[in-house]
Amino acid sequence: MRILVLGSSGTLGSAVAATLAVRHEVLGASRHHKDRRGDLSDEESLLALLESCGPLDAVVSTAGETPVGLLERLDADALFQGIRTKLLGQITLARLAAQRLSDGGSITLTSGLLNLRPIRGSISAAVANGALEGFVRAAALELPRGIRINLVSPGLLEESLSRYGQYFPNEKPIAADEVAQAYVQAVEGGDTGQVYAIHG
Amino acid sequence: MRILVLGSSGTLGSAVAATLAVRHEVLGASRHHKDRRGDLSDEESLLALLESCGPLDAVVSTAGETPVGLLERLDADALFQGIRTKLLGQITLARLAAQRLSDGGSITLTSGLLNLRPIRGSISAAVANGALEGFVRAAALELPRGIRINLVSPGLLEESLSRYGQYFPNEKPIAADEVAQAYVQAVEGGDTGQVYAIHG
Repeated sequence: MRILVLGSSGTLGSAVAATLAVRHEVLGASRHHKDRRGDLSDEESLLALLESCGPLDAVVSTAGETPVGLLERLDADALFQGIRTKLLGQITLARLAAQRLSDGGSITLTSGLLNLRPIRGSISAAVANGALEGFVRAAALELPRGIRINLVSPGLLEESLSRYGQYFPNEKPIAADEVAQAYVQAVEGGDTGQVYAIHG
Repeated sequence: MRILVLGSSGTLGSAVAATLAVRHEVLGASRHHKDRRGDLSDEESLLALLESCGPLDAVVSTAGETPVGLLERLDADALFQGIRTKLLGQITLARLAAQRLSDGGSITLTSGLLNLRPIRGSISAAVANGALEGFVRAAALELPRGIRINLVSPGLLEESLSRYGQYFPNEKPIAADEVAQAYVQAVEGGDTGQVYAIHG
């Protein structure tokens, strides 16, 4: 298959791209990519990216940040900004991909564990992740031409321990290579509307 | 306790208000309420409503609509409009209530089953409901002064069968009175960050 991986320069995305590349043709893309730029907060860039890739059988997104912020300062504008990239951006990517993927293709998005095991300051991430779970289940009913959509919810990555480990003292880390297998399952398998929770 | 119920004129809200009123002082409010107007899409109205109620021990929301719409027409603007009332509105209500409720008070919000058991056209509702689950779990970690927050996810109401039953042929309906007990548990109990799924 010919697969676009948006976020391929990230910790998880590079593992996903490398794992998929064993059996597939992988086109990496990211916000600062030289040849294939795609920014979840910029719909035009997503459209241009998809148009530039030629025929695609699968689109995988491992991109999408959410800001840290406490409830007391989370007015509607701040919340909207907080979910713009990871939630609205991935939904936009899915909508545009659904119109362009080959028949029977697939879309795989990424959430995370903060909607289930939040920490202080994680409301934007918790909102985006929970919303993405609802989104893939509902969107799976509407996708045309046998196109499938699934979500991977990765836990704390071993590779991110030095950066984020202090915030998750009780979380068992998991290798990015192991999480990458969920993306392989989503791309190669027959599931749709599924959430793969790959937590430690 | 003195409890504000926003959405008290609705099918579910009226049952919740009546059930809570057995043991508590209930102040009903809604979008078109004569004395206590509160519109989830209008932050000023929520602020004015909370200010007008005097001391409150609990705020319950059973309000919040989401539009029907298919993915292919769901651009970022349409999605934002779709989640503005039920998701952003309830989050705003929670944020404002957290600053005003008495110590040890509680906030109880409402989602629904469409993030778990979606139907075609339900993406906005699925996104809002899933997001609300993440929100209450994360917000529970941040609320001050022992204030609690929980979410009730009601299934298909018996009282709504004639209106919505055709869309949920496989859903077992449940009486609004029964769902109302979950709100009593949320208000009177000690839980926080919990999602009560009251599906048939």
